[in-house]
Amino acid sequence: MIDVVGLGPGAGGGRTADAQAALAVADVLVGYTAYIALIRTEYPDKPVFDTAMRGERARCEEALRLSRAGKRVALVCSGDAQVYGMAALLLELSQETDDIRVVPGVTAALSAAALLGAPLSGDFAAISLSDLMTPWEMIERRLHAAAQGDFVIALYNPMSRKRTDQLRRACEILLQYRSADTVCGWARMIGREGEQARTLTLAELREAQVDMFTTVIIGNSSTRLRFGRMLTPRGYAL
Amino acid sequence: MIDVVGLGPGAGGGRTADAQAALAVADVLVGYTAYIALIRTEYPDKPVFDTAMRGERARCEEALRLSRAGKRVALVCSGDAQVYGMAALLLELSQETDDIRVVPGVTAALSAAALLGAPLSGDFAAISLSDLMTPWEMIERRLHAAAQGDFVIALYNPMSRKRTDQLRRACEILLQYRSADTVCGWARMIGREGEQARTLTLAELREAQVDMFTTVIIGNSSTRLRFGRMLTPRGYAL
Repeated sequence: MIDVVGLGPGAGGGRTADAQAALAVADVLVGYTAYIALIRTEYPDKPVFDTAMRGERARCEEALRLSRAGKRVALVCSGDAQVYGMAALLLELSQETDDIRVVPGVTAALSAAALLGAPLSGDFAAISLSDLMTPWEMIERRLHAAAQGDFVIALYNPMSRKRTDQLRRACEILLQYRSADTVCGWARMIGREGEQARTLTLAELREAQVDMFTTVIIGNSSTRLRFGRMLTPRGYAL
Repeated sequence: MIDVVGLGPGAGGGRTADAQAALAVADVLVGYTAYIALIRTEYPDKPVFDTAMRGERARCEEALRLSRAGKRVALVCSGDAQVYGMAALLLELSQETDDIRVVPGVTAALSAAALLGAPLSGDFAAISLSDLMTPWEMIERRLHAAAQGDFVIALYNPMSRKRTDQLRRACEILLQYRSADTVCGWARMIGREGEQARTLTLAELREAQVDMFTTVIIGNSSTRLRFGRMLTPRGYAL
């Protein structure tokens, strides 16, 4: 059996009881090296199979092989198990007889937004700016659509060492619909050493340098700052 | 101090360690009666302040009053603390001196989707069909936008005893963009007695009778069924 486990943000507090139980009962832990490192100290004696970035397929295949050999496997993902995680690839590679359970976790949109205030109070859209597996044209189409729907937007993978221009291009699209002083924010290293969060305007975000550990929240036309925190009112008449 | 706590789905397994700790340390638990009932047995001796639906403002004001009187308060929400939850209203009613922390939780889009397979593997939009606080025109605009962006869509509050027509109207909008056999699913009573999940087509969803305990997932143009489960491929070349 394989549990695809969303670990939530960082190293522990954001993890659910179900995720914790799936790790505890597993015979083998499988995952990206950096995420295995987050949980390794809790389970120093469990066998692990970890690979570097882009080793997703190898991880899923090893998880399936181990499960078919009778092992109970925890295939771990940061945040949620599905959202930009491994659950879909595992299902895609699985056969009908494979026993797979998806254990959801707190995805970065939620944990980043919580550090920033309460910007995700209602309807929102999550968009990854990584064009590794989604054509950039599709990403642009989704940015336009999310802007037209006045969604609060959570941007995943806004930038990396190799992809340095996507956040600026995304902000330029959003600036066609939203004012330059739209309230935005980012959070990085959530739940880990070095956790940071800050608010800024959409114009400032366009020029911002962030990294692959960062999640960005872009307010909609109702989002404002209250005592330095992002707030999208729910619509109660106060 | 007030912790606005996302309890995650149902009665325990989906709750994070941070949420659990916030409940344990609280002097008073504040929330909607049905959510307080979910945690009451764990903390039988803690004082509670609970109100029925639509008592949101009273709950926030009582939480603020108690906090200003020196109590540590856990203001509980089902799922996440922000997403269709109480964090935004609390921030809106707060003063600068109020000490408020938002503790995120697994929102129903994630927990429903996990029961259905892995439909939320990538970009997605969350939309509530309740027009109690959002004008129906805005909801329609968001449905059009999400469809145009080919987002997988999570629908919250698809139907209630009084609102019986919104899901049908939403499906009719989506059918302007997506085929009648688009893979959809719903889950209800997640993590609770009576948990159910099923997949169905968009045409079938238009005629479906669901309730206020249900979350609906609507696949995009890539979503398909694999061994009876929803799968939106991530885009790996297999």
